[in-house]
Amino acid sequence: MNREIFMELLRQREFKAVRSVLNVMNAVDIASLLSELEDKELTITFRLIPKEKAADVFSNMNHSMQTYLIEMLTEKELREILDDLYMDDTVDILEDLPANLVTRILDTVTVQKRSLINQLLNYPEDSAGSIMTTEYVDLRKHTTVAQAMAHIKQVGIHRETIYTCYVLEKRKLIGIVTAKDLMTSEDDMLIENLMETEIISVSTHDDQEEVARLFAKYDLLAIPVVDKDDFMVGIVTVDDAMDVMEDEATEDITKMAAMNPSERTYFETSVFAHAKNRIVWLLVLMISSTLTGAIITRYENAFAAIPLLVSFIPMLMDTGGNCGSQSSTLIIRGIALHEIEFKDIFRVMFKELRISLMVSVVLAAANAVRIMLVYHDVQMALVVGLSLIATVIISKLIGCVLPLLAGKIHLDPAIMAAPLITTIVDTCSVIAYFSIATRVFSL
Amino acid sequence: MNREIFMELLRQREFKAVRSVLNVMNAVDIASLLSELEDKELTITFRLIPKEKAADVFSNMNHSMQTYLIEMLTEKELREILDDLYMDDTVDILEDLPANLVTRILDTVTVQKRSLINQLLNYPEDSAGSIMTTEYVDLRKHTTVAQAMAHIKQVGIHRETIYTCYVLEKRKLIGIVTAKDLMTSEDDMLIENLMETEIISVSTHDDQEEVARLFAKYDLLAIPVVDKDDFMVGIVTVDDAMDVMEDEATEDITKMAAMNPSERTYFETSVFAHAKNRIVWLLVLMISSTLTGAIITRYENAFAAIPLLVSFIPMLMDTGGNCGSQSSTLIIRGIALHEIEFKDIFRVMFKELRISLMVSVVLAAANAVRIMLVYHDVQMALVVGLSLIATVIISKLIGCVLPLLAGKIHLDPAIMAAPLITTIVDTCSVIAYFSIATRVFSL
Repeated sequence: MNREIFMELLRQREFKAVRSVLNVMNAVDIASLLSELEDKELTITFRLIPKEKAADVFSNMNHSMQTYLIEMLTEKELREILDDLYMDDTVDILEDLPANLVTRILDTVTVQKRSLINQLLNYPEDSAGSIMTTEYVDLRKHTTVAQAMAHIKQVGIHRETIYTCYVLEKRKLIGIVTAKDLMTSEDDMLIENLMETEIISVSTHDDQEEVARLFAKYDLLAIPVVDKDDFMVGIVTVDDAMDVMEDEATEDITKMAAMNPSERTYFETSVFAHAKNRIVWLLVLMISSTLTGAIITRYENAFAAIPLLVSFIPMLMDTGGNCGSQSSTLIIRGIALHEIEFKDIFRVMFKELRISLMVSVVLAAANAVRIMLVYHDVQMALVVGLSLIATVIISKLIGCVLPLLAGKIHLDPAIMAAPLITTIVDTCSVIAYFSIATRVFSL
Repeated sequence: MNREIFMELLRQREFKAVRSVLNVMNAVDIASLLSELEDKELTITFRLIPKEKAADVFSNMNHSMQTYLIEMLTEKELREILDDLYMDDTVDILEDLPANLVTRILDTVTVQKRSLINQLLNYPEDSAGSIMTTEYVDLRKHTTVAQAMAHIKQVGIHRETIYTCYVLEKRKLIGIVTAKDLMTSEDDMLIENLMETEIISVSTHDDQEEVARLFAKYDLLAIPVVDKDDFMVGIVTVDDAMDVMEDEATEDITKMAAMNPSERTYFETSVFAHAKNRIVWLLVLMISSTLTGAIITRYENAFAAIPLLVSFIPMLMDTGGNCGSQSSTLIIRGIALHEIEFKDIFRVMFKELRISLMVSVVLAAANAVRIMLVYHDVQMALVVGLSLIATVIISKLIGCVLPLLAGKIHLDPAIMAAPLITTIVDTCSVIAYFSIATRVFSL
């Protein structure tokens, strides 16, 4: 849909046309279109959305639009939307709302739903419980396929997914039946003969990142969530798993660049929040990098005698930093994808050592050629070459060991990324450089 | 399943027990278990896997195991597996095989299937065509729900997904019906009254990353793929989209750490391949960082007069690098997630400018305090403070502008990450520092 045309229709108050347009549009696209409207237009337009789509559009809107609408809508309108929202989306919305609006919503829903919402709100952030929904299809093992299909026809429309059905016995999960199984089996087949009993499930307190990884590993569409007594309490669906995967990748990338991750997008985060997320690590890293400066000062006599020595410091520091962050990046990502574990530490170190040797010899040779061409100074070529080899080896080893150690002591490996590694490696490379220089030049 | 027990059963040639164990295990877990076996055991164990699971296990194995098995299996065994494999998995396997084994497989399948495989192999790498499958359920608009269900019961077992069905007319896609719609509608309802006609589809040559983004945006389970004549040719399913999403995040992260991405995992990539992926950028960055060294040499007189000046260089370089990479990281990720576009460049710059001011004033103040405490030198505190402010502003602006410019000229924004930004920012911060120092100290 062309935005300009839509805006023009709205401006001319051609509400009938607007309604027709909204009728054929996808809920996600409607939400994105609404985000460009003024507040007043937003309320008017939202009321023109076909009833069966309104909840879906609402759950796709951004937080500030949702907050505004909850304030503006009548209690009846609000109730209609809340009735159609899936439980996980309701809880998502509530988590970010100011207290008075949370109360407004809790007053609108039924007592039963209210207690369920309160329970879901109590799960730890980023846990399976906090992203699950409680609407799923449950079956009994003595049911036939035909009965199950009839049951789904009756309740299915209110379930977030009907493609995986859960066979319960005394509230415990004993089997899983897919809609594909049901649709391709004979009517009189018993569920217990059809169901899969090797079940992949998660607990309410499991980390959402682990849950998302199970989806990717086993190609699932939904995963059941059980509580500590092994009772089934909900499901997580693949669309939420995809969102988690994207958010977790963003979070890792942000941490790897020495920032506290933000829940919001770049533009949604305020200038002050951005500054706050960035300043702590900058301060820590700034102070630790003064150590490198202090070490350089100790070799004042060396570079007073041979000022050229100073000019190779940036090259050594940068190369060390780059080598270290290459290794740490691969290891951090490998840990996140469960391809590398702590027990692999010696295997990783040996591999990085061999890579360092190959890489550093090429770098040292390239540098030697350059120094010979520019300065005709064999000793300097030797000093810089040896320092490069030492720097590359040290930085690659530090780069691979620190993330693994961080993981071992239950820190997020992502903090052991480029910025911190660079600062640590800087100090090492400067020490190596001046130790080698003072020996070769007998300073 | 406990691995040790399994291995022991295999060693004792308790094949009946092994078969029972394999019977209840999940295909993904079997593949992972097989990866720990010797080649000879692998063939034996693979033959013990229940027939209906064999293809699924096969498609979950790693590349070298697949290659080995294709060599070892008889033509009949191979044909059985190929018959059960979905088309997208078959093509995936073929893409990595040596030519003689590709021929072996193409000789095994039917003429019809062979021409389809050849067609799929011809789609560009990373395109929608290369990851799609050709097995989907197609319906006609005048069919009733009951007829559609009967059709699915008949063909469904051989389709990768039956949850989204495609309504075709003269090979063109005119509508989409979900299994949920079918299962919750009356038997005599006509498909044309049930189908959704606002269709989200992709073209065979669309980038797989864009395809994965559509899944995340619209919460899809499958997406139809159409060719240039608008004929429907296949579908991409959500499990493949998740894999693409994970691979693309890994690729971006790898590029952001100045490496050429690898298709394989860390351990699967050889030492030589690792070195090759890392050396090019290291060389480029090493050579460009000598520029910073050359600039420092130009100010030889300045640090001969005040040697303390040298000791702040690492701190300024590191802080500039960190600030620049914070900004570039957020922008690169924002571009990848379509949250930031080139047209936002001035909005981004203005935001980064305000963030820089906040951040740099805090950093400068912290540094001033430290310098006053340690060196009691007001002029030095002033020089370093001003240099910090200049460095932070320059690096944040460079960090946000370069990825946007790269995207504009169709380069991957991910190459404008920490390493390259750091090298560029280093030069700027050193120039700023010495310009300010020579003025304040009148050198």
